Amino acid sequence: MSDPDDQNPLRQAVFTDLYELTMAQAYDAESLDRPAVFELHFRQMPKGRNYVVAAGLESVLSYLEHWHFTDDDLDYLRSHGVFSEPFLDRLAGLAFTGDVMAVPEGTVVFPDEPLVQVEAPLLEAQLIETLVLNQVHLQSVLATKAARVVTAAAGRTVIDFGSRRAHGAEAGVKLARASYLAGAVGTSNVLAGKLYGIPVFGTMAHSYVQAHEDELDAFDRFQQLYPETTLLVDTYDTLAGVHKVVELSRRLGQRFRVRAIRLDSGNLAELAGKARKIFDRAGLDGVKIFATSGLDEYQIAELVESGAPIDGVGVGTKLAVAEDAPYLDLSYKLVEYDGRPKMKLSPGKPMYPGRKQVFRIAQDGRITRDLLGRHDEDLPGQPLLRPVMQGGKRLSAARVPLEDIRQHAREELDRLPQPLRSLQPASPPYAVQVSDRLRADVETLRRELESC
Amino acid sequence: MSDPDDQNPLRQAVFTDLYELTMAQAYDAESLDRPAVFELHFRQMPKGRNYVVAAGLESVLSYLEHWHFTDDDLDYLRSHGVFSEPFLDRLAGLAFTGDVMAVPEGTVVFPDEPLVQVEAPLLEAQLIETLVLNQVHLQSVLATKAARVVTAAAGRTVIDFGSRRAHGAEAGVKLARASYLAGAVGTSNVLAGKLYGIPVFGTMAHSYVQAHEDELDAFDRFQQLYPETTLLVDTYDTLAGVHKVVELSRRLGQRFRVRAIRLDSGNLAELAGKARKIFDRAGLDGVKIFATSGLDEYQIAELVESGAPIDGVGVGTKLAVAEDAPYLDLSYKLVEYDGRPKMKLSPGKPMYPGRKQVFRIAQDGRITRDLLGRHDEDLPGQPLLRPVMQGGKRLSAARVPLEDIRQHAREELDRLPQPLRSLQPASPPYAVQVSDRLRADVETLRRELESC
Repeated sequence: MSDPDDQNPLRQAVFTDLYELTMAQAYDAESLDRPAVFELHFRQMPKGRNYVVAAGLESVLSYLEHWHFTDDDLDYLRSHGVFSEPFLDRLAGLAFTGDVMAVPEGTVVFPDEPLVQVEAPLLEAQLIETLVLNQVHLQSVLATKAARVVTAAAGRTVIDFGSRRAHGAEAGVKLARASYLAGAVGTSNVLAGKLYGIPVFGTMAHSYVQAHEDELDAFDRFQQLYPETTLLVDTYDTLAGVHKVVELSRRLGQRFRVRAIRLDSGNLAELAGKARKIFDRAGLDGVKIFATSGLDEYQIAELVESGAPIDGVGVGTKLAVAEDAPYLDLSYKLVEYDGRPKMKLSPGKPMYPGRKQVFRIAQDGRITRDLLGRHDEDLPGQPLLRPVMQGGKRLSAARVPLEDIRQHAREELDRLPQPLRSLQPASPPYAVQVSDRLRADVETLRRELESC
Repeated sequence: MSDPDDQNPLRQAVFTDLYELTMAQAYDAESLDRPAVFELHFRQMPKGRNYVVAAGLESVLSYLEHWHFTDDDLDYLRSHGVFSEPFLDRLAGLAFTGDVMAVPEGTVVFPDEPLVQVEAPLLEAQLIETLVLNQVHLQSVLATKAARVVTAAAGRTVIDFGSRRAHGAEAGVKLARASYLAGAVGTSNVLAGKLYGIPVFGTMAHSYVQAHEDELDAFDRFQQLYPETTLLVDTYDTLAGVHKVVELSRRLGQRFRVRAIRLDSGNLAELAGKARKIFDRAGLDGVKIFATSGLDEYQIAELVESGAPIDGVGVGTKLAVAEDAPYLDLSYKLVEYDGRPKMKLSPGKPMYPGRKQVFRIAQDGRITRDLLGRHDEDLPGQPLLRPVMQGGKRLSAARVPLEDIRQHAREELDRLPQPLRSLQPASPPYAVQVSDRLRADVETLRRELESC
């Protein structure tokens, strides 16, 4: 077997659950090949969230454009002994030929609202499920968490430092993108900088200080190479480290251009206050204080509220894994087959049948409520789902530069009613109302299904 | 810019935090290029965990074997304007030349114990930090969660169904591997099956049932293709679905070979009990009951305790994101440079200096305590860290088939004292004792550092 890490799973059509393939073979055998509409939505707002920032569409479209089964894939499937040659032949010739509508990345979304709507021959629409879910899930979870962190920082610089604790290298670069999209100023991840054109930042690690016999010597050496650097001061004793920065400034005089220090342990508010005083007394009021160390939106909000003189934060682990809400109950559901609306009745998992549209109503620059309706209804408000792919080809309007997505996300967050911007659950939550016609469709279909 | 999803981040040396590169350039400028030893360890057991299952070494070794900077990487770095040509030249010629010791994958580990120990020229050892951490972190978090799920299932079949909610496609395949390593019987992820040789399982989705006008017809069609299949019965009404399976068995007589049903909503214990009775009364005592729907180790333990007749579980989201403990405070610390032990004193983040070894003491087939000592001590117990790479070349002993790792993990879990196997925190936790010599080293170094 070759090295699994040589493979890029984002380019593998067999990144799919086995049942997608067994169902696909059954569809093929039964000639169930009429157009199907699947919608991606979540049923419930994750605990502690007031909104979700939609993200991941770019990866979905890129996946669909590349989607195909290789000979190697087919050989592997053949080895299972359950797939027929005619079906494997059919897989060999597949490309994605469907239409996709979607909510633009960076848009805030709420329960029951379709984020992505796929119309394609049933077999294609079914086979792409796993990766479409996987990407929108990951990226929306991360963008939502990052938006909260940025909101909590209330204008202070936020940088993603989470690569090492993100769930994999792929998640690491997508974390950087999602964070930037949601308002972070950049990332520590160099690959993400290279791939997405995101600004990349870095300071120094404890190991650098430790590799020198003397902390002050380490600081001095580092600023010789990087005069406008950020010095990490807590390797041995934070305030002693701060005093060493002051000493360095005295030594260097006009040549001292160190821009900031980083605090990475202890009581950050208290240490920041003391460091600020030490710097200000030494005439170093231009030296900024940057804090890291297990921060999340809750701790950042506390620091901000305490008035701690912190100018920026580097946010790692808890952002990287979206610690308090690491998942969304996102699902990809068949809502229409061959022109007929579909619904399931599984208890506790209600859903709305048929192809839908979301109409968003705003007033005085703030969004006030959404209407979930049939796709062909003419309801007040701005429709959120827009065409992004037709006949398997991405529309040019669906090639959105990351800067534009970031700008859109900023506007979206600015348009949120104040209670929704809070880190605490808003009561009442944002209103998603169901149109009368859609509600009537539910009842009609429920009666039909229950009479079966 | 090319499509970022075309890149495999596991094969990019620039999957690194920027500070690794700025520090590396400083090391280069200062000729700080003596051998350094870094150790990967976690300080605290994650909340609610009694052990961590080490995993990810295979990816680390594979990364180190492939590690190099491309011309493209260097062009990107050049564009930052902070890296000198001589330094970029040095990066261009780099390969990993170090030695690595590690705890075998599947081994249970505890706070302060090195999982991986890297000895290499300082610059190399520093530059690889981010990805080494990222992989051991992800895979150990997932393997630990999976081990708990498998333990809770108490012999019932466990299958990983988490690909769609794992944090990215890479995390999806690694979830499958980590789950299998920790005792799951397989995964739904076809790519993981292909890459790792893991058994792949699948049932059917609601969309298949919905694509048919009639649920019974859907069941019948599916079993024609896959006679020994598992039928999903909760699309409309679970018990009605169960009765349809019975009806199908009457229709088919001897030809009925359906192996199981899947319950995916509602009160699983109650529905399983009722379904079991219906099947048993119909003489279908061979039909197994498989449950899914937001399960984790806590709910599985409850189901098992309730005596619910559930034969197997498919575990998705909460396993995939390790919901209750999605991260480990894993770090990669310089412990020795140029033969001298190193330590930092940052408050709340204690660490032990110098190159270490873990000695594990067992009695009557159960592990009883670990001794953390200097690497050159002769202490009782079995040393856990073993050589896996020398001079940048992987040792043949470090090519371990996944089946052997899985067997090792099973033995490791069997050797845990009973209180540690519990889902609840064991009190006292497993004992990791520090040798007298290592303790003396800490004190000596602390005095030295504090006198600076």
